[in-house]
Amino acid sequence: MSNATVSWQEIAARKREADVAKIPAQWILPPSVVAEAKLQRNIVGAFIDRFLDSDTRRLTAMDVSELLQHMGSGSVTATQVVTAFCKRAAVVHQLTQNMLEICFDLAKDRAEELDLYFQTHKKLIGPLHGIPLTLKDQFHVKGVETSMAFVGWIGTFEGQKGTGKERNIESEIVKEFYSLGAVPIGKSPETSNNILGYLWSPHNQLLSAGGSSGGEAVMQALRGSAFGIGTDIGGSVSMPASYNGIFSIKASSGRISMKDAANTGQGQLIMPTAVGIMGPSIDTLRRVLKSMVSTEPWLRDPYVVPLPWREGEDYRPDDNHLKPTFGFMANDGVVTPHPPVQRALKMVKLALQVAGYDVIDWNPPSNAESLEIHGKIARGDGCPDVWSALQLSGEPEVYEIEGLFEPGGPRKPMSLTEYQDVVLQMRDYRNRYQEYWMSTASVTKSGRPVDVFISPVAATAGLMRHKFLYSEYTSSTNVLDFPTVVVPVTFADQSVDRVESRFRPFTEIDKKNMEAYDAAVYHGAPAAVQVVGRRLSEERVLSLAQVVVDALERQKGKESGRLA
Amino acid sequence: MSNATVSWQEIAARKREADVAKIPAQWILPPSVVAEAKLQRNIVGAFIDRFLDSDTRRLTAMDVSELLQHMGSGSVTATQVVTAFCKRAAVVHQLTQNMLEICFDLAKDRAEELDLYFQTHKKLIGPLHGIPLTLKDQFHVKGVETSMAFVGWIGTFEGQKGTGKERNIESEIVKEFYSLGAVPIGKSPETSNNILGYLWSPHNQLLSAGGSSGGEAVMQALRGSAFGIGTDIGGSVSMPASYNGIFSIKASSGRISMKDAANTGQGQLIMPTAVGIMGPSIDTLRRVLKSMVSTEPWLRDPYVVPLPWREGEDYRPDDNHLKPTFGFMANDGVVTPHPPVQRALKMVKLALQVAGYDVIDWNPPSNAESLEIHGKIARGDGCPDVWSALQLSGEPEVYEIEGLFEPGGPRKPMSLTEYQDVVLQMRDYRNRYQEYWMSTASVTKSGRPVDVFISPVAATAGLMRHKFLYSEYTSSTNVLDFPTVVVPVTFADQSVDRVESRFRPFTEIDKKNMEAYDAAVYHGAPAAVQVVGRRLSEERVLSLAQVVVDALERQKGKESGRLA
Repeated sequence: MSNATVSWQEIAARKREADVAKIPAQWILPPSVVAEAKLQRNIVGAFIDRFLDSDTRRLTAMDVSELLQHMGSGSVTATQVVTAFCKRAAVVHQLTQNMLEICFDLAKDRAEELDLYFQTHKKLIGPLHGIPLTLKDQFHVKGVETSMAFVGWIGTFEGQKGTGKERNIESEIVKEFYSLGAVPIGKSPETSNNILGYLWSPHNQLLSAGGSSGGEAVMQALRGSAFGIGTDIGGSVSMPASYNGIFSIKASSGRISMKDAANTGQGQLIMPTAVGIMGPSIDTLRRVLKSMVSTEPWLRDPYVVPLPWREGEDYRPDDNHLKPTFGFMANDGVVTPHPPVQRALKMVKLALQVAGYDVIDWNPPSNAESLEIHGKIARGDGCPDVWSALQLSGEPEVYEIEGLFEPGGPRKPMSLTEYQDVVLQMRDYRNRYQEYWMSTASVTKSGRPVDVFISPVAATAGLMRHKFLYSEYTSSTNVLDFPTVVVPVTFADQSVDRVESRFRPFTEIDKKNMEAYDAAVYHGAPAAVQVVGRRLSEERVLSLAQVVVDALERQKGKESGRLA
Repeated sequence: MSNATVSWQEIAARKREADVAKIPAQWILPPSVVAEAKLQRNIVGAFIDRFLDSDTRRLTAMDVSELLQHMGSGSVTATQVVTAFCKRAAVVHQLTQNMLEICFDLAKDRAEELDLYFQTHKKLIGPLHGIPLTLKDQFHVKGVETSMAFVGWIGTFEGQKGTGKERNIESEIVKEFYSLGAVPIGKSPETSNNILGYLWSPHNQLLSAGGSSGGEAVMQALRGSAFGIGTDIGGSVSMPASYNGIFSIKASSGRISMKDAANTGQGQLIMPTAVGIMGPSIDTLRRVLKSMVSTEPWLRDPYVVPLPWREGEDYRPDDNHLKPTFGFMANDGVVTPHPPVQRALKMVKLALQVAGYDVIDWNPPSNAESLEIHGKIARGDGCPDVWSALQLSGEPEVYEIEGLFEPGGPRKPMSLTEYQDVVLQMRDYRNRYQEYWMSTASVTKSGRPVDVFISPVAATAGLMRHKFLYSEYTSSTNVLDFPTVVVPVTFADQSVDRVESRFRPFTEIDKKNMEAYDAAVYHGAPAAVQVVGRRLSEERVLSLAQVVVDALERQKGKESGRLA
């Protein structure tokens, strides 16, 4: 039977079944449990833990550093670690539908090789030995399909049949991970797709997981892998990280390779898709990025900048570096963040000030400008490749991308002349932003410019599916090519997070966005901030995000001490 | 009288007169000398020296390191150095018409400041204290006009009147130079322009100076400044360096700032204009680039990569680094270089082999591919900004750019969709080139990939004005964003440089190009090679270009010893 006679619904259903068939029978949950999970608001922690044995719980609770310590001492094998995470990931998938590809078999084989290596050489194979990871289904893993959740890509190589490349290409970063000892266990979909459906935040299933790297964010929130890899061209790593209460870094483009990744909109290299790492701690993000950089990816990918890991940029409070200064943006004057995010920002500001850091107001060129630039650069071509991918199977576009197209086809592309005008506008914006940044030297106590700035990640803490209005807190970091680290701070609390009566919207979007806030629905949603640094300053941003985490911890300790 | 009633010829004539008026009367040459110079084939060295006093000759013969040594010891002042070069530059301009802007007055003032600084502090102000430079008239120097030799830009800011920016903007690199102690003394035009006419190689005035940074190359060949700054998007620094017998480095884009430079085609940032340094030695290029990088330009220009100078990449034969391997391309299989270039290449190969270096054949993805990509990326928009600049005054396009336009207007731009396809083609080419580069590890003695490769700079040694057919030896370095260093090797010699009877052209262009070679006309033209490295590896390329220079010197010494 040729595909021509099979509906896209049928192909998608077969894909779902094939996925589940890759889960060992003893890890399959009863349908009643899955049904029960759907009724829960919060499935993080206690809810999911009850489906797992104590060994699995213990191992999957560990951070990368602890896992390495155990494997390095020989007290735990790579096979045990990988098996524990596969088992947990299998449960996560059944509860949330967040795995488009499951490759536990490949992972088990690799873990056995790593164990053999350890037995023979009495040492770990590399800095990520035996660490299980998942990736957004945009990266090719040899032996595994890549569909980006396009039904029409199933059984093809990026939409083309019979190329010989099917399941046979490996993205540059996947090669890096294998060489470092890390073990891919599966791949996740975009948040909204016609194969697996829609993804919700496991902290509050009334709210979206956020997109597009939502599958990875859900996986991290439920600890189904030790770290995850997403992609980001307008907040697709940062926003889901925020909505799912995890840490992430979106690097500047040119720091992590996108070589041999599947993609749409690839001809747009003025503001390229950036890669992000998601995980449970800054330490995890730092170890993963540092390990990737240690492989010297610029030798293999000419688009990666030859920038080795700079320990000197890595601020630690106890070293000889000068104390950093933080810029602080409570809102961007376009859209006011929801009350839980406002509170998260206040907590961070207070914690930093109590810890003795200089925190100054951040008033750069407006996000309203980057808003105008971003859409034109990212989608000025009318996204014909997304349209074509949908046409292959006849599947309809999901709600989230309906607006991209005219009825019946993609929009007319901008002219090259108009496009180049926008490129100049972007350059001008970047230049003025940089000038503003340098000018802060005149207002800091140190007399040096601000080191990083702190801002909302999104105007919402979590997201009601059909109320996504504004992404410029993150999209601006793509227009500017700034690295950004998301730091989870707190959770929405309906008893305190109310819209202030004195709230006056800056704009029509601001008004609608605040109207979409519902304290009862939002209750329990994670609220985060982002720490943003200058282009290609990943080391510094990560170390200063750790300063934020430490300051928050100390402050929480003090306050709970005061209450006791 | 408004400009509307003044012809472009008249405006250009006034500009020429205003330039000459800036030269002190005692430095003006008699018209007979200028006329005599035009009849000379070679005006380098002895010819120009006879118009200069011995002090001027002595100082302008010095390399940057010697000048700094003298100024640092107090035996020579910045004023003496700057005056000597201004005087020589004035003579160069009168002989060749290569200064569009003369700012000896500004230079004198700055030199006096530097002398005062030295007297007060007993040290030099920076690593380029008192070093006179010239720049292509694409960079803004405060107090000086920028016209890029467009008649319609005279009296404007980049073609716009009454902006308040006229003579009041300073390009980022000019700020850097001032802060380092260097002293701009003037600016040079593109090789072919309607204000000053056409520039010829001072080594052989039957041949072109090459473009577009020909004014700078002529200045360096005649030692009118200690170093020059050009720009390059397809060989505009490298080719004139080759034709004028000087050294140059065209850096990767992102290593040297183009911020606040005048430009056409600025919206094209996929393959941005790169900056080049031209001078009499590798040591000069290295000092200048290292000094620029030391100012941390990435703090001010977000398009510059935060890459400090890497001494470790700087190979020296006596250090602990492993011996490098050179790739070697005698021709690219598309167009065969003229006999003098063939001989220069053989000399370099032999010298390196005699010096014990591993030299392997270089067979990367073809220049024929980059040829196709280059034109579409660089000129896919139809160059409407060049057209507009010409329309401002009504001047005709010069011969060299006639082909850019349709009769009466610019070509229709490519569509954004077609353009993005070319961007993908470029990425694929870069990836395959990189893969080839890494694959050479299997054929080198060291087992490591080739460090740099050596190739022709151009298919011609010098150029007959109307016989420019092929620039892909250099344009490919723009498509690939590779840094490249031009090393002068020898001079065309009609007694030995003949087209071999067994020559069989690869292509129609190859045939025409070789037909354009005339041993008698070419006699005396400089012949050079280029040393090309991976993206953003300027330190390594410069140090290995020095290895080439040293190997050639040793070999020449041996051969002259043998002859003696």
